[in-house]
Amino acid sequence: MANGQRHLRRAVEPSAFGISLSKGNGQPLFMQLHEQIIDRIAAGELIAGARLPPVRRLAEQLGINHMTVAKAYKDLAEAGFVEGRAGGGTHVRAPYGTGSRRARGSEPAVAGPLLSERLYELSHAPGVIGFTANYPQPDPECTKEFEVCLQSVIADGLSPYFAYDPPNGRIGFRRSIVEYLAQQGLMTVAEDVIVTSGAQQAIELVVRLLVPHGSPVIVERPSYYGVINALRSVGARILEVPLEADGMDIEMLEGHLARHRPRLIYTNPTFQNPTGVTASLEKRHGILALARKHGVSILEDDHNSELRFSGSHVPSIRSLAEPGDNVFYVHGFGKVFLPGTRLGYVVTPAHARRPLLELKAHSDLHTTGIMQEAMARFLARKNYPKILERMKRNYAAKQRKVVTSLLAGMPPGTLIGNPEGGLSLWVTLPEGTEVSELYYRAVRRGVAFVAGEVFYASRINPRTLRVSFGLLGDDVVEEGVTRLCSVAKDLMRPRSAPSPIFT
Amino acid sequence: MANGQRHLRRAVEPSAFGISLSKGNGQPLFMQLHEQIIDRIAAGELIAGARLPPVRRLAEQLGINHMTVAKAYKDLAEAGFVEGRAGGGTHVRAPYGTGSRRARGSEPAVAGPLLSERLYELSHAPGVIGFTANYPQPDPECTKEFEVCLQSVIADGLSPYFAYDPPNGRIGFRRSIVEYLAQQGLMTVAEDVIVTSGAQQAIELVVRLLVPHGSPVIVERPSYYGVINALRSVGARILEVPLEADGMDIEMLEGHLARHRPRLIYTNPTFQNPTGVTASLEKRHGILALARKHGVSILEDDHNSELRFSGSHVPSIRSLAEPGDNVFYVHGFGKVFLPGTRLGYVVTPAHARRPLLELKAHSDLHTTGIMQEAMARFLARKNYPKILERMKRNYAAKQRKVVTSLLAGMPPGTLIGNPEGGLSLWVTLPEGTEVSELYYRAVRRGVAFVAGEVFYASRINPRTLRVSFGLLGDDVVEEGVTRLCSVAKDLMRPRSAPSPIFT
Repeated sequence: MANGQRHLRRAVEPSAFGISLSKGNGQPLFMQLHEQIIDRIAAGELIAGARLPPVRRLAEQLGINHMTVAKAYKDLAEAGFVEGRAGGGTHVRAPYGTGSRRARGSEPAVAGPLLSERLYELSHAPGVIGFTANYPQPDPECTKEFEVCLQSVIADGLSPYFAYDPPNGRIGFRRSIVEYLAQQGLMTVAEDVIVTSGAQQAIELVVRLLVPHGSPVIVERPSYYGVINALRSVGARILEVPLEADGMDIEMLEGHLARHRPRLIYTNPTFQNPTGVTASLEKRHGILALARKHGVSILEDDHNSELRFSGSHVPSIRSLAEPGDNVFYVHGFGKVFLPGTRLGYVVTPAHARRPLLELKAHSDLHTTGIMQEAMARFLARKNYPKILERMKRNYAAKQRKVVTSLLAGMPPGTLIGNPEGGLSLWVTLPEGTEVSELYYRAVRRGVAFVAGEVFYASRINPRTLRVSFGLLGDDVVEEGVTRLCSVAKDLMRPRSAPSPIFT
Repeated sequence: MANGQRHLRRAVEPSAFGISLSKGNGQPLFMQLHEQIIDRIAAGELIAGARLPPVRRLAEQLGINHMTVAKAYKDLAEAGFVEGRAGGGTHVRAPYGTGSRRARGSEPAVAGPLLSERLYELSHAPGVIGFTANYPQPDPECTKEFEVCLQSVIADGLSPYFAYDPPNGRIGFRRSIVEYLAQQGLMTVAEDVIVTSGAQQAIELVVRLLVPHGSPVIVERPSYYGVINALRSVGARILEVPLEADGMDIEMLEGHLARHRPRLIYTNPTFQNPTGVTASLEKRHGILALARKHGVSILEDDHNSELRFSGSHVPSIRSLAEPGDNVFYVHGFGKVFLPGTRLGYVVTPAHARRPLLELKAHSDLHTTGIMQEAMARFLARKNYPKILERMKRNYAAKQRKVVTSLLAGMPPGTLIGNPEGGLSLWVTLPEGTEVSELYYRAVRRGVAFVAGEVFYASRINPRTLRVSFGLLGDDVVEEGVTRLCSVAKDLMRPRSAPSPIFT
């Protein structure tokens, strides 16, 4: 309480919260409190840095048990809305994301560079070897193939594309997607396919459809930052379920479902970004069964399951679903064949087709027809399986090389993931390593990676990093790994006293 | 009260509202009530059709004046959340839009076809002449020009585009946009330009950035339905300011600004969609001055000011702005040159650059590089002014023809707009005309238009329609107008008794 007194003038008075709890409405008090505080943050009434009233004081003023307040604060901290500070007290955190929930009447805060900008800059900085991009360098034949398709679209005349298309996408492209999916055991119909501007848009639309502001959503821990960002921008309460070697911790998942009643489970079951973990068939059935039991939707992000180097294909969750299951299956062509073309899609449960389509139409009317048609022809020519085979051979060899070199060169105690496919490796450094320090030293030494923290919704300081090799040639990979290992070993070395100047 | 009693079982008990008003928090009680009811609707606790408690009963239970409740209900009705019913009482309306605010735990409702789908279907139905699309048919030279550009992008090799781009767009394209704007007297820098997937995305991003759920926004009355939809999908309170012959009713605008404290004014000042009205220079200065005084941002949608047939250029609001004014200027190349390419941009105030960029990145990472590059080359070749001149000559002649034929053929008392440019005409039918009836009869007769109601945020039944001629050839235009006039005159004719079968 001494700390509380010291900060009294900066503390927000509970009356300013306008909090009113209702015992009769069926919602637990801690949850009401939790949600009302989030609302105040969203409305800009509680700005970043504001101190919440001390637990006991607020409990007294609301006439409730202090454990209830403590629990609400704890949940808020886990969801990233507030944080404890060394000086004492619980403070509203600076927003991670941005967006529709900005403080009323205030100017948007100046933030640091976007991750996407930083990745772009780094991967293009001269001399820096960037293990930062989780997507492939399309091989020359793939590029050529797309060029041929785009040429043929032009040759047939572009007039049909200079008009507004239907928001769900061109029927020819949707049919070719249906065929593409059938080859992977996912049976669907063109009516359930909505073309989007990349998988990112598909994810964002589903999130906006299903996640009202302040409501809970389950993700894997760690999870793809694109989803974490999309969830933050709608003000979701992000609940993380730890990943095990064969997928989500099912017991924890069930606990969260029962306790928090989320509307959505987001999962990236194959070669998970960032860990590379592939959920077992058993776990997939388990997730589906739990979703069914609790009436929850699943957003299945199948980002690059085509890039399997070993082991055998595990069916997508959507392909295991029964009628009535609400599985949204999202895929993009950028993470496998043609990055930057911004062509993705969502396979939607039939009942969600129309509202999702409305959101798509309000977002950007439709995705460029010319690009859709070129991609439809790319798929129709059926040369891609051959291209894919070669890509897989090359990337499998590259993955082996990176894993071997990292194992040999990183400090003892480092864990290196060894997934059955995909373009990234998940590296866990020995205890005590400061990844942020490693990051800056590495960039100075001309090598970059993605620090693990962006893959966690809760602000922690993990000892993890993602090393992605999709864009790099063999010689560059080798040099990059050498630099990374050297920086990591330097960092682990106990500090010596500064050398005298005259040596 | 008798009505209230009859419906008692269907009425929502105020306790279920969980409404709690706070007299000390500086927000008027009617506004607190208004917002809390919107929150309950958004949370799905008040579903479509639910009856709000009678005014006096709720006032008693909350211990406030019944005029306060009546005012809140009136505002809710104006904003389209509730409606009075013939049988008595105030009921929650079925949602117009959709989206992130869907009822918790409920299945998305099955809705009618999307307007965009309907427009697409109608304009493509065989035999139907669709005056429905407010965008041009690119002339053959324009198509050819873009083909040449796309060809040259392919010829130079597509490899540079198969990578993730920065979210703000390619620097070459942004520079060519800066040059394009300079020719229209709008001076900006590439850093303030963010490339989007069409103007619609630019509008949606700005709306999501600036309009928190439930907060008020000013639009013109009538206004572009794409904006109304985007505003609905973020749960905005839409305040309409009537359009006069020279732009918004400034007095009404000031009243709304003072009373409702909105964060955003949306305006489409040149050849307004749908009315064709162009705001005078004086009004533009007036809007800017009011925005400055009240600390409000302006979203200026400049959809096709290039297509001016007569009169002289009026500078954009953004070009009149001073440092410190918050004007977001939105433009797309689809409404003028190349529909369907989904290439637009927003010129942003510097302080909003980063948060807007974050939203863009979370929405779809970036817009297709190949298309950006092709459009950049299209602009750099500088053939477009010549193309534009020819388009303007053709469309000016077409506009004159449509206006003349409508004036000659529509029932007496019909008002036909005669704007100085653009591809649409705004038609007001004589009192008593049922536009929905006209619409269905017209489609049966092989001619379509856009019924005025979609351009109003409030649900009214206006006697207006938008007739757009951008896509139609001269012969088709003539036939279409003839059909439309004939249907309209039929509709106005007093009903005769059914003819006997044997005649």
